[in-house]
Amino acid sequence: MSELRQDPTTREWVIMAPERTKRPQDAPRVKRAAELPDWDASCPFCTGNEKQTPDEIFRIPKSDGDSAWEVRVVPNRFPALTPDVGIDRREDGRFARRMGGFGVHEVIIEGPSHNTPMALMTYQQVEKVLMTYQQRYNALKENRRLKFITIFKNHGRESGTSLVHPHSQLVATPIMTPYYHKRFDIAHDYYADMGGCLYCELLAEELEKGERIVAETDGFIVFHPYASRTPYETWIIPKEHSASFAQFPAANLGELATVLKDILFCLYDLLDNPAYNLMVDTSTTIDEDDPYYHWHIRITPRLTTIAGFEIGSGIYINPALPEDTTKVMRECCISLVKEGGVCFRPPA
Amino acid sequence: MSELRQDPTTREWVIMAPERTKRPQDAPRVKRAAELPDWDASCPFCTGNEKQTPDEIFRIPKSDGDSAWEVRVVPNRFPALTPDVGIDRREDGRFARRMGGFGVHEVIIEGPSHNTPMALMTYQQVEKVLMTYQQRYNALKENRRLKFITIFKNHGRESGTSLVHPHSQLVATPIMTPYYHKRFDIAHDYYADMGGCLYCELLAEELEKGERIVAETDGFIVFHPYASRTPYETWIIPKEHSASFAQFPAANLGELATVLKDILFCLYDLLDNPAYNLMVDTSTTIDEDDPYYHWHIRITPRLTTIAGFEIGSGIYINPALPEDTTKVMRECCISLVKEGGVCFRPPA
Repeated sequence: MSELRQDPTTREWVIMAPERTKRPQDAPRVKRAAELPDWDASCPFCTGNEKQTPDEIFRIPKSDGDSAWEVRVVPNRFPALTPDVGIDRREDGRFARRMGGFGVHEVIIEGPSHNTPMALMTYQQVEKVLMTYQQRYNALKENRRLKFITIFKNHGRESGTSLVHPHSQLVATPIMTPYYHKRFDIAHDYYADMGGCLYCELLAEELEKGERIVAETDGFIVFHPYASRTPYETWIIPKEHSASFAQFPAANLGELATVLKDILFCLYDLLDNPAYNLMVDTSTTIDEDDPYYHWHIRITPRLTTIAGFEIGSGIYINPALPEDTTKVMRECCISLVKEGGVCFRPPA
Repeated sequence: MSELRQDPTTREWVIMAPERTKRPQDAPRVKRAAELPDWDASCPFCTGNEKQTPDEIFRIPKSDGDSAWEVRVVPNRFPALTPDVGIDRREDGRFARRMGGFGVHEVIIEGPSHNTPMALMTYQQVEKVLMTYQQRYNALKENRRLKFITIFKNHGRESGTSLVHPHSQLVATPIMTPYYHKRFDIAHDYYADMGGCLYCELLAEELEKGERIVAETDGFIVFHPYASRTPYETWIIPKEHSASFAQFPAANLGELATVLKDILFCLYDLLDNPAYNLMVDTSTTIDEDDPYYHWHIRITPRLTTIAGFEIGSGIYINPALPEDTTKVMRECCISLVKEGGVCFRPPA
């Protein structure tokens, strides 16, 4: 029996239709690490091929003065936006508003290994990637014409990536993104009505109910949202209120890396290395101190296809209930705790 | 050089980045008709397999009293929504609003032939499919609990379809869809400000400019929108104002069929049978007479992937300018005029 659920952060409805899991369809699957070489001569992100990328912007060297590196940031070779144009808006008629394609589009190469996805990296390596996210974010926000910085990751062909080598991307735009605009408006209205942060209060309710909590650490809650758009949609959200990822204490990035890597490992293990997108949902660069928004990481596995109904209506059909997928993920998290190395505190 | 363009019907910005066409990526391609059999024993939509579908709702018989059919409508075997549940809304907490999965989910089997996509059908067959769309729409809108009826079509694996046999779908929901909500609000504001229909005035401007007009008939304009989200995004829009597809005169469906088939043929021919989604964008069932909205058909080829940036930001990156794709499509349309059978009047 299906039901409709409303996402309190967007007011959009999602159709939860567990019966549709019986529908015949290939689950997209990405090659497992063992099926790929550790180094690929034709890959521009592999060691030794550094000259195939545009000039490097940032790197974390393996050790001081070493030519080896652990993370590199380079401009996207096929940038959606470029920094060398103006941002004046023009109207070529009443219905043709446009502006120059000003912005920044960078690629964060997450490590030298061609076949080590984030799910299989060391915690230390994931922490270095997150440090790089924050470093680039904070460097770019100094440019006041860049209003919004989207950090995201496409893993696997169905996610939209054209290169296998593990990498993330950053796109800085001179406009606020429409999805943030919508979520901000709703959080702002909530604050006006209730005097608190929508996300903080949502977290409190989720913790009280418990049924969608995948894991909890000192600083983070991992949960599958009530109106998840896709099976295994996972949010990693800091307990402490903060609008912007940029302001998250660098000293705590190690904890975030542990959580992120373990969650990605469980998805890799349970769903056979699925394609997924990862997004850092954060405020505009000028609203970092606002009391309305609450940054988080959102991971959406691409197990279903965004089809004509979703494109035409904006309503997603999710064939899996978050309460069910939570149980599966939680078992994986608990097994990781038993094995030692992680900081998860599974809910009672 | 890229630029940002704002869609006047949604106020969303699209990044037009022609440089990105050079990016290495497979263009999704669907098998051509000649590569598929005309009949498939395992296909539930093929003739002779009628018992494999749930009980038929509607059919256009080949001739009176004949057991052969030209179009069939059946319930979706894996429905997202079902008509046998209530629509009461409940709140299981402050952030958990839900309602029963009430609604209707039907499949329109567009013809008996397994390997004749709409692009290659006769005009008469396409007209019968459109008559069926309208017949089912008008039958379902009698149920006042169904607020919105989305008719759409997924063609090719990347579009989200699980079956090759040509078919469309209809989903009737007890809620207004969020994309319509947004477009309606913007059209409503425009009417309040300017006293006219946004879409009628947009059409007038596009006709005056001409550079994005693919074709024109007595009753329709075909154009590639200024802020197209995908390469070759194509709108077919009636010249005469009307909020709802349901009110389009049945006598003119033949003209619409000619336009639709020719446009789909050109996409098939030019882009090697691409995956695409087709949506009938129309008003809510209770607002059919409103002066704000203007129904149209939207076709979005799936040549690019909806990736992390699009999902995270809501901003689409389109590697092709509509002015360029218009020229290509227009040449195809003109060649069809020369060959006789079509009603296109190519722009001067």
